Amino acid sequence: MKNTATTQIIDNITDIKERIREFKEKKLVIGLVPTMGALHIGHESLIQKAKEECDMVITSIFVNPTQFGPMEDFNKYPRQLEADREICSKLGVDLIFAPSPEEMYPQGLYSIGIDFTMVVPPAVFQNTLCGISRIGHFNGVATVVLKLLNIINPDKAYFGRKDAQQFVIIKKMVKDLNLPVQIIDCPIIRESDGLACSSRNKYLNEAARKKAGCIYKSLQKVEELYNTGITQTQEVIAQSKELLPTDMEVEYFEALDMDTFLPAKEISKNTLVAIAIKLDGVRLIDNLVI
Amino acid sequence: MKNTATTQIIDNITDIKERIREFKEKKLVIGLVPTMGALHIGHESLIQKAKEECDMVITSIFVNPTQFGPMEDFNKYPRQLEADREICSKLGVDLIFAPSPEEMYPQGLYSIGIDFTMVVPPAVFQNTLCGISRIGHFNGVATVVLKLLNIINPDKAYFGRKDAQQFVIIKKMVKDLNLPVQIIDCPIIRESDGLACSSRNKYLNEAARKKAGCIYKSLQKVEELYNTGITQTQEVIAQSKELLPTDMEVEYFEALDMDTFLPAKEISKNTLVAIAIKLDGVRLIDNLVI
Repeated sequence: MKNTATTQIIDNITDIKERIREFKEKKLVIGLVPTMGALHIGHESLIQKAKEECDMVITSIFVNPTQFGPMEDFNKYPRQLEADREICSKLGVDLIFAPSPEEMYPQGLYSIGIDFTMVVPPAVFQNTLCGISRIGHFNGVATVVLKLLNIINPDKAYFGRKDAQQFVIIKKMVKDLNLPVQIIDCPIIRESDGLACSSRNKYLNEAARKKAGCIYKSLQKVEELYNTGITQTQEVIAQSKELLPTDMEVEYFEALDMDTFLPAKEISKNTLVAIAIKLDGVRLIDNLVI
Repeated sequence: MKNTATTQIIDNITDIKERIREFKEKKLVIGLVPTMGALHIGHESLIQKAKEECDMVITSIFVNPTQFGPMEDFNKYPRQLEADREICSKLGVDLIFAPSPEEMYPQGLYSIGIDFTMVVPPAVFQNTLCGISRIGHFNGVATVVLKLLNIINPDKAYFGRKDAQQFVIIKKMVKDLNLPVQIIDCPIIRESDGLACSSRNKYLNEAARKKAGCIYKSLQKVEELYNTGITQTQEVIAQSKELLPTDMEVEYFEALDMDTFLPAKEISKNTLVAIAIKLDGVRLIDNLVI
């Protein structure tokens, strides 16, 4: 049954920890859905899965400054706390944790890396795909996720597969650092033309939005070729790229082994095929695991 | 009352977590004393403090390979688990957690930094004192301490002030990453001639051991000069250094602000005066806070 009460927003660490303490006291299973807000049906699917599996579901909404590069869209990133709250209320989220940057980084942002302890994911998982162009991005992601896990202390935390590299890095962090949480991955949710749901889709103008469906079509082409027995990565990627419009700037279109994250010369079971493009100034990512 | 039963040694993460779960179930306050073994009266003072403040005291004994440099004394570092267990039993330690390197780093040590998530303390706290000569040492320390905290989930963890830089870095990590643990620092315990207790004191031959008392005397000289109104760091250190024998190689002898960890031009309240020397091939550290 859906909870139709308005979900409470907590903006500070002391209060959320106190509420968590009460939940733990009652031995409730806690699920965390960490987000940067601007919730879409992809996030909704994570929340729904958490609702199925947990007694209490907490959604964190925090546009984390430490995972944006200086030239990236931190300031422009969509913020819509009241609309997000409505979605959370509709889905029966028990609490929203929406701290300010000052609450999460009280020493100030100027000092990150100099005067702040960071979590640094393994080089082998960082130095590929989005890690190439987004220097330091995954240090920021891993650090803020660890902070959120320490604050909320959930039994389970939910991440979408669209950010495949992020998901793999977080799974690795949890294993390497013995974090007492179960990481749950959820499939990519797509719009009707196949475009993966993303808060950044809002940035697209109408013409760009029409073209964006090709991203997924190019990934489907990879699978199609693989199914017909064409497995040599270079050839498969070259053919699949032809489905992308010429004004789409391809940042990467690569095949990796999902476990080792090393380049795959041949497409096979467990190959991650990942793509990042820029269209009309908007950077979008998508992927598919064979 | 002292517990005279032999303290149980647990060598794997699954079993220790199960025991911790039982303690938590009973709402017992858990204290962790992380050590590399070769327990001396310094460690004993940490354990005693933990016994006073906690219901259950766990001592971890783990010579952590990731905090030793390739040219350092990892292989030679004293290991004496049975003797350590006797000390723990005498002091009423409830459990010893003594994992193998394989248990803590199942992916193998060759991959640290490449294929392993690390915790990286702030540059400003790393790039001074021991951090200068022991490259990567504090990454190893912070990472293994975070792992131990995640495995044991203690309410309090106890660290000695001898490793002042380590203590400051761990306090900072706990604050920056919102770790749910209280870090307790304990004063330096000294042998009768003032030499700070250290597992590495065992390495000293008789002649070197005799000379080693001068380390603390030189720190005391700093305080003495400060008390007579001589506060200019350069002058104070120069005069204090004169108490050290000529065959003692001084790696550093410095004054820092205890909070910012920046060099202190003047000695004042809250100045950390820290020294590292090499004597007969043995590296020893000591410090004093004004």
